Amino acid sequence: MSKEITSRTQDYAQWYNDLVLKGELADYSAVRGCMVIRPYGFALWERMRDQLDKMFKETGHVNAYFPLLIPKSFLSKEAAHVEGFAKECAVVTHYRLMNDPNGGGVIVDPDAKLDEELIIRPTSETIIWNTYKTWIQSYRDLPLLVNQWANVVRWEMRTRLFLRTAEFLWQEGHTAHATAEEAIAETLQMLDVYASFAEEYMAMPVIKGVKTESERFAGAIDTYCIEALMQDGKALQSGTSHFLGQNFAKAFDVKFSDKENKLDYVWATSWGVSTRLIGALIMAHSDDDGLILPPRIAPLQVVIVPIYKGDDQKAQLNEKAYEIAQELKKAGIIVKYDNSDNNRPGWKFAEYEKKGVPVRIAIGLRDLQNNVVEVARRDTKEKKAYSMEGLTANIKQLLEDIQQNMYDKAKAYRDSHITNANSWDEFVNLLEEKGGFVSAHWDGTLETEAAIKEKTKATIRCIPLNNPKEDGKCILTGKPSSERVLFAQAY
Amino acid sequence: MSKEITSRTQDYAQWYNDLVLKGELADYSAVRGCMVIRPYGFALWERMRDQLDKMFKETGHVNAYFPLLIPKSFLSKEAAHVEGFAKECAVVTHYRLMNDPNGGGVIVDPDAKLDEELIIRPTSETIIWNTYKTWIQSYRDLPLLVNQWANVVRWEMRTRLFLRTAEFLWQEGHTAHATAEEAIAETLQMLDVYASFAEEYMAMPVIKGVKTESERFAGAIDTYCIEALMQDGKALQSGTSHFLGQNFAKAFDVKFSDKENKLDYVWATSWGVSTRLIGALIMAHSDDDGLILPPRIAPLQVVIVPIYKGDDQKAQLNEKAYEIAQELKKAGIIVKYDNSDNNRPGWKFAEYEKKGVPVRIAIGLRDLQNNVVEVARRDTKEKKAYSMEGLTANIKQLLEDIQQNMYDKAKAYRDSHITNANSWDEFVNLLEEKGGFVSAHWDGTLETEAAIKEKTKATIRCIPLNNPKEDGKCILTGKPSSERVLFAQAY
Repeated sequence: MSKEITSRTQDYAQWYNDLVLKGELADYSAVRGCMVIRPYGFALWERMRDQLDKMFKETGHVNAYFPLLIPKSFLSKEAAHVEGFAKECAVVTHYRLMNDPNGGGVIVDPDAKLDEELIIRPTSETIIWNTYKTWIQSYRDLPLLVNQWANVVRWEMRTRLFLRTAEFLWQEGHTAHATAEEAIAETLQMLDVYASFAEEYMAMPVIKGVKTESERFAGAIDTYCIEALMQDGKALQSGTSHFLGQNFAKAFDVKFSDKENKLDYVWATSWGVSTRLIGALIMAHSDDDGLILPPRIAPLQVVIVPIYKGDDQKAQLNEKAYEIAQELKKAGIIVKYDNSDNNRPGWKFAEYEKKGVPVRIAIGLRDLQNNVVEVARRDTKEKKAYSMEGLTANIKQLLEDIQQNMYDKAKAYRDSHITNANSWDEFVNLLEEKGGFVSAHWDGTLETEAAIKEKTKATIRCIPLNNPKEDGKCILTGKPSSERVLFAQAY
Repeated sequence: MSKEITSRTQDYAQWYNDLVLKGELADYSAVRGCMVIRPYGFALWERMRDQLDKMFKETGHVNAYFPLLIPKSFLSKEAAHVEGFAKECAVVTHYRLMNDPNGGGVIVDPDAKLDEELIIRPTSETIIWNTYKTWIQSYRDLPLLVNQWANVVRWEMRTRLFLRTAEFLWQEGHTAHATAEEAIAETLQMLDVYASFAEEYMAMPVIKGVKTESERFAGAIDTYCIEALMQDGKALQSGTSHFLGQNFAKAFDVKFSDKENKLDYVWATSWGVSTRLIGALIMAHSDDDGLILPPRIAPLQVVIVPIYKGDDQKAQLNEKAYEIAQELKKAGIIVKYDNSDNNRPGWKFAEYEKKGVPVRIAIGLRDLQNNVVEVARRDTKEKKAYSMEGLTANIKQLLEDIQQNMYDKAKAYRDSHITNANSWDEFVNLLEEKGGFVSAHWDGTLETEAAIKEKTKATIRCIPLNNPKEDGKCILTGKPSSERVLFAQAY
C-alpha cells in the first residue's frame, strides 16, 4: 500500500500531496484553487476545531457570525488594510442569471448589476468593526470578546491543498477593549492559546514571536505568531494574533465613553488559525508510509483488525473484539472494529497506517487462546503482545505515550534545527544544506530583509518573545544589531 | 422592559423583529439582506446544530466540506435544477481589485475577469455530484452518507431576519445509494430525524408530508417536509428531505458497478434545515414579554439573580448562590449567576425574560434565612418558593416540565388549528378568520393550486404522510378528489 506514496527523499512536495489525497483528507475540486475536504479530513478538522473552541470559551470568548460579503468601499477605510487585502479578492458584481436568449445556457443578467460590488471576505475586520460601531457605546460594553468560525476567500495564484487554497476554513477572533494594555494582554493570551494547542494537541513545538514590519498583518500595530518547523527544514506560520491599536476603531468611528464619561476610540485585536494547520500537522509528523496523527486529535484513535479465515473463525473473534471495543469506548477512546470482508488484514493494516491511526490492535484465534492481542503503534511501528487483562488502561497509557513521543521527536528535530549563523557564507550554507531556523543578526531595515529574501528565499519568521539581547553585526550589511532574529525558508 | 416590545396583537411582524433585535439574537448588517447573528443567537444555533449533528452521526452520516463557489455551467446540467436555482444568485465575475488611477479608492480590475463566472452556492447538489463522480465506482463505495454545515446565498428580494435572508447558515445532507428503495428510505429517515428534533428539542409539533409538484425542490422526484404552525396562524416549512432519483447522477454521469458488475446510475437524496428554524422557534413559543426558549436548546437554562443592597449583603448571598450554581452545573444544567452591579434586579428580571431563559432563581437575605429561593418559570410566569433541600433535582425536573408544557401548549394550539373546509366559502372564511391549516379536497392540478393561491394566498403545505383516503370534491373546481390536503398561508 505504501508503494502508492512517493517517498520524502524522492519528492517531498509529491509525498505531501500523496498523503493528502491518498490519506483521503482532501481532494481537488472543479473550482480553481478550491479544495474538497473529505470526511476523514473534516473529522480531523472537527477534532481540532472543537478543542480550540473549548479553549476560546474557557478564556471568555463567545461565537457569532458576520456576513460573507463585504461592501467594496469598506476595504478602503483602513489605509494599510486596503493595501494588504484589496488585491486578490473574489468580487461579486451581479445578483442574477438569466437564460441566454441565444440558447447558450444561462448567462449573467446584465440588468442585475450591483450598485456597489461586494467582496467575499478575505478576513472580517471591516464588516465586524462596522457592526461594533452599533454595539459599543460605553465602557460597560467592553471588553467584547467575539470569535467566528467561517470560510474566507483569497484569490491565491499558486495553491496547495490545505497550505494555500483560494477558499479555506478558519476562525477569526475580533475583540474590543477599553485600553491598549488590555488589548495587548488579549493578543498575547491568544498567542499562548495557539501555542498550547499546537504543542499539547498537535504535538507540534512552536516558537512564539513577533513579526517584522514587512510580515505584519495589514492594519496591525503588531503581529505575533507561532512558527513551526516541517520535516524538510522549512518553517510554517501556524497562527497569528494581532494587536490592531485603534486603527479599525478610527476607520469605522467606534468610540466609547469611559467611567469619567470621556470619549475615546476602542482598542482592538484579531487572531486566527485555519485549515492550514492540517498541512502543518501532516508535515510535522508523517512518514513514507502515510500520516501519523497525534492521539489527542486523531479522528480514530484505535482500530481493531481481526485475523480470520471463514465466517466461523470470524464469529469467534467478533465476541471478544466487540467487548474490547466497548471497553475502550467507555474509557473515552475513539475506536473502530473493522471486520468487513471486503478487504484482507494486510490491506487493512496498510490502510490504517496510511491514515495515521495511532494504535492498531490485531486479534487472531491463537491470541484468543493466549488471552493476548497484538498492539502496533503507528509512530514507532513497534509491535507488542498485550494481555487482555488491563488492556483498556494500557491502551490509554499507550495513547498518551504516543502523544508525548511525537512531541518529543518533533521537538528534538526542531531544536537541532535552530542554528546560529555569524557570517553570510555560514548563513547561506546553513539555509542550503541544513535548513531549519537560522538565528542571525539583522540591521532592522526593510531593505536588508528584502535583499536577504531575494538572495536566499529566507524570510524573518519572527523575533522570538523574550529574545536575549546580544550585540552583533547584520549578517548581510555588517551594520550594528542588538539581537538575533530567526530566518527560514517558509511555506 | 417589555415596553420595548410591540405586542403581537398590535403588530405581529414588528413583535417578531423586536424579539430578534432586542433579544439580541441577530442584527441587520451593512449588506443588503444579510444579517449578523449575535452571540446569544449564535449560542442558540450552536445548541441546535450540535444536537442535529449528533442525530446525523447516530444515523451513520459523516461531515465534509465542499467549495463555496460553483462554476456557472454546473447549474445548467440538471434541467429542473437550473430553472429553480439559476436565478437570484450572487455572481463572482472578477478576482482582483486595483487602485483607481483616478484616485477613487479601489475599483474592480477589468483585466481580472474570470473566463467562467462563479456562483456562490445557493445549494450544493451540483458541485457535490461533480465530486461524487470521482468517489463512486462500485457498490462498495455506497451508500455515501455525507452532510455539510455551510453558508449559502440566495439573492432574495424581500428579506426578514432568520426567516429569509440572502445569506443563511444551514446543513445539507447529500447521500448516494445503490437502489431507489434505499434512497427513499434515507429520505424518510431524515424527515423523521427532523421531526424528532423539532418536537423533542424545539418543543414544536410538526406535520410530516410530501409536497405537491409546484412546491417541489428543483431537481427532485419527491420533496418531503415538516410543517409547523406559528402563533399568527401561518405555517412555516421547517425542513425538507428530497428523493432526487437518478437526476443528478445522470446530470454528472455518476455510475457504479453492482455486484454483478452491471453499471447503473446512482440514486440520490438531499435534505436540509437552516437558521430559519430560529425564526420558527421564536414564533412558535414567545410572548409579548420576549422570547420563550425550550430548555433543551436554550443557551442559558437557569439564571440566578441576587437581591441585595450594598456589598455586605451581596457577599452574604454570593457564597450560597455560587454553591447552588455549582451544584446545577454538576447536574449538567447551563447556569449563570448574575451578580453584576451594573443593573438592578428588576432590570435583570425583565432582561432574562426577554431573552427567554427558562428558569430564574431569585435569592435574597430573607430567603437565605428561610433556606429557600424564589423560582420563576418563563413559560407560565409562575413563581414559587423552592426549598434549598433537593433544589438541583427539582430544578432539573422543572426544566423537563417546561419542555413538556411548551410542547403541549404548542400542540394544543396547532391541533385546534387544523380545520376541515367543505365549501369554498368555508375555506376562504377559515383562512381569513381563524388561520392555521385548512384541510380540503383538491383536484390535483397545478392550475387549481395556482388559482387558489392567487385568490387566498394559501398554498398546499403538504399531503400528510399516511393521509386517509376520502372521496370528495375539489374546494375550488368541484372535480373529484381522493384525499384532503393541507392548505395554509405560509412564511
